[in-house]
Amino acid sequence: MVLTIMTTGNSTAAGDGPDETIGSHTGPDGRSGIDAMADPGTAFESRDAAVAASSNRVHRITLRVQEVELDVAPGVTQQMWTFGGSVPGPVLRGRVGDVFEVTLINDGTVDHGIDFHAGALAPDRPMRPIEPGEELFYRFTATKVGIWMYHCSTQPMLHHVGNGMYGAVIIDPPDLPPVDHEYVLVQSEIYLGPKGEPGDLAKMQAEAPDAVVFNGYVSQYAHRPLAAAAGDRVRIWLINAGPSRVSSFHVVGAQFDTVYREGAMTLGPGDPGAAQVLDLAPAAGGYVETVLAEPGTYPFLSHSMVDADRGARGAFLVTE
Amino acid sequence: MVLTIMTTGNSTAAGDGPDETIGSHTGPDGRSGIDAMADPGTAFESRDAAVAASSNRVHRITLRVQEVELDVAPGVTQQMWTFGGSVPGPVLRGRVGDVFEVTLINDGTVDHGIDFHAGALAPDRPMRPIEPGEELFYRFTATKVGIWMYHCSTQPMLHHVGNGMYGAVIIDPPDLPPVDHEYVLVQSEIYLGPKGEPGDLAKMQAEAPDAVVFNGYVSQYAHRPLAAAAGDRVRIWLINAGPSRVSSFHVVGAQFDTVYREGAMTLGPGDPGAAQVLDLAPAAGGYVETVLAEPGTYPFLSHSMVDADRGARGAFLVTE
Amino acid sequence: MVLTIMTTGNSTAAGDGPDETIGSHTGPDGRSGIDAMADPGTAFESRDAAVAASSNRVHRITLRVQEVELDVAPGVTQQMWTFGGSVPGPVLRGRVGDVFEVTLINDGTVDHGIDFHAGALAPDRPMRPIEPGEELFYRFTATKVGIWMYHCSTQPMLHHVGNGMYGAVIIDPPDLPPVDHEYVLVQSEIYLGPKGEPGDLAKMQAEAPDAVVFNGYVSQYAHRPLAAAAGDRVRIWLINAGPSRVSSFHVVGAQFDTVYREGAMTLGPGDPGAAQVLDLAPAAGGYVETVLAEPGTYPFLSHSMVDADRGARGAFLVTE
Repeated sequence: MVLTIMTTGNSTAAGDGPDETIGSHTGPDGRSGIDAMADPGTAFESRDAAVAASSNRVHRITLRVQEVELDVAPGVTQQMWTFGGSVPGPVLRGRVGDVFEVTLINDGTVDHGIDFHAGALAPDRPMRPIEPGEELFYRFTATKVGIWMYHCSTQPMLHHVGNGMYGAVIIDPPDLPPVDHEYVLVQSEIYLGPKGEPGDLAKMQAEAPDAVVFNGYVSQYAHRPLAAAAGDRVRIWLINAGPSRVSSFHVVGAQFDTVYREGAMTLGPGDPGAAQVLDLAPAAGGYVETVLAEPGTYPFLSHSMVDADRGARGAFLVTE
Repeated sequence: MVLTIMTTGNSTAAGDGPDETIGSHTGPDGRSGIDAMADPGTAFESRDAAVAASSNRVHRITLRVQEVELDVAPGVTQQMWTFGGSVPGPVLRGRVGDVFEVTLINDGTVDHGIDFHAGALAPDRPMRPIEPGEELFYRFTATKVGIWMYHCSTQPMLHHVGNGMYGAVIIDPPDLPPVDHEYVLVQSEIYLGPKGEPGDLAKMQAEAPDAVVFNGYVSQYAHRPLAAAAGDRVRIWLINAGPSRVSSFHVVGAQFDTVYREGAMTLGPGDPGAAQVLDLAPAAGGYVETVLAEPGTYPFLSHSMVDADRGARGAFLVTE
Repeated sequence: MVLTIMTTGNSTAAGDGPDETIGSHTGPDGRSGIDAMADPGTAFESRDAAVAASSNRVHRITLRVQEVELDVAPGVTQQMWTFGGSVPGPVLRGRVGDVFEVTLINDGTVDHGIDFHAGALAPDRPMRPIEPGEELFYRFTATKVGIWMYHCSTQPMLHHVGNGMYGAVIIDPPDLPPVDHEYVLVQSEIYLGPKGEPGDLAKMQAEAPDAVVFNGYVSQYAHRPLAAAAGDRVRIWLINAGPSRVSSFHVVGAQFDTVYREGAMTLGPGDPGAAQVLDLAPAAGGYVETVLAEPGTYPFLSHSMVDADRGARGAFLVTE
């Protein structure tokens, strides 16, 4: 009998050496080398979470699928499958009636494809997997507002989404009022694989993530907080890319007086109630608004605390 | 250090022989013998997911609890506890004011019972466990619309629900518009037990399912797609029977312009927004509608991808 | 045969002696000594779940953080970190415009703090961690209605919330109608640690709870049911304190004709639909109402059955 000893992402196996087959990133804390509280250092540049409206009515985008080694936490890299070299892929934004013309080019080593929730169409051709070196053209017209996930359409999707292939399309409501800041956060899980190889499918199948992150990097906005000024109204667009876990988004010190969730406004500023979380099942999206009244640091997190502990956290820094 | 040995539902142990204690169905892929992508073969008959309205005002049903070996995936059987010999049990449908008269007969070997969420009443007598050979009479009047779970009421309910004892009752809204197709999908988890024995309670207690399915069989509608014609409006009724996992139902290439969830309409066709998922906690239900505009194959899944990977997937086949 | 060895919190390791490091409470059923069906005995006093409105407009509360050994299940104790010596901490209740003045005193051995979702403010000073022996003053004004979580604000929050530091603040809607009974239930997970030590952080990081409870004790209201009389309208306020799992609250034999969830009314008694569950992600809250029409015993539970099996269950006892 051959035993494979798997120190799961969160176990506390004292005295184990690193397992060369699975979890090779194992570090000093035994959590696959990821310390969700570690400082990424002065050279670290966080992903820009700001998102602006677009006046284009036709959006032409070329997305190259690139398999690249990315930083996912301080001192930890992972070979990710990406749309355009980053995780998540670029945010697209438009309005109802806009046309999106996407050219997908597979620069990778295995089949990939793409699936835009933002457009309704027969999946057969546009979402087909393409081989390395191939490209396809995907055209859709936005007919419904919301924040929509896009992701790789190739099986096993668990592996492709679990290894970085996702992003967001925002279709603005027609009467969306201006706010002082708009940010977009994509929550996702990170499943480390052996050095230089894609994320570990077995961990994905066991729902045992090594990290849970906003915009692709552990706790990045805890170290590079998102900016606002006292009294600003901030809108936060959210997609839970999963692949598998529920998100429960919360901003410490803030209440959401406006909540839009999966196509429906559930709360506006005139309502007597407010929300403490926006809960999002995998592939669900929405936006929340809050006024950050006083100067200070307002952390945010998935209030599913096991995931905040894994890195699904950040902060707003509110200045005078 | 004490280690607990578990053959997890989703491990990737190549070359395993069957484990005679837990996971005895272990097959070539090491996933307890379940290959969620396998073709069930030409003889396979999928469960009919279509559901029609009923004009009866009194619904008299005899439900026999039967403990039967059922196919749950290609080449994999499991001894299931059932209402009426199938998993899920039959779909009941009526309107507000309708009376449901159910005779439950226990043809099994252990105690069983039944609990209808569709009716409000003191549980003591109608939901009591009955011994093998006994029967009980359960009468309720529908007073509220929605899609309601029913399930075995005998402890441990985790075991009885986890081993197949659930179904749906639909109480139509009074003004429910006709659509081109109505389907009902019940999501549930499958926990394999040793050959010829009920599902493994320990796996249920570890929330380690071997499969997640719609209407009782892994990926069945991927191989026997649900039918529609281009331009059809399709209504999909959903119950997440669990016993334990959240569902995030999505149809690839489609958007839900109508969403009814746990008693409340959250979206209608006239709204500017639409939903990409219907999220359902265990025992929650609802319906979604979409227009499948073009011919093609539209996959559906729980977008909690670990569960889609376990078999919570299917497709609509849309013809000209 | 290749086995994967995982050290999990809830496994059924046959033949193991107790593990002195993790799960030292291991009992006859192998589940860390907790039998979720065990009778707590005649001397057991359940937590009072009733909650009444308050006419105070200024609420002055002193909360002492106390690290105390508490009963969490029949025959099982755990060293918990508490607000005021109990788990959950006290329920606070007021109206919009009320001022809450809280003095927090750390009588414990490690740093602690507090975070009230019920008030919007810069977290920096009021939510700061304080050392043993220190105190802080936290003042907030309620501006939005709802049921709001409070919890320890000290890192790792997973550990502090996972070991008992949470409670609820209710801010009444201005037009909240009187009902016959109002109860509050806080769902949370219990992670046992070694005897005399705090809950096990490794189990929390593995989301492997030993128990899931309402108001801090396994199945307590199954043995000490909450009271109502036939025909009574009952309002149940709920917070899911987590730290990590989704709740799906259901009352057997009842339907929720009124649902308030995260700041929004989704159903009222005049609606044609009703809800069978109130689903709450971690840190989400709301209330449901139902009329318990007939005398009898109406169990309640999280319909995520794995958690009901772990002790997230109770009952209403409805008398003539």
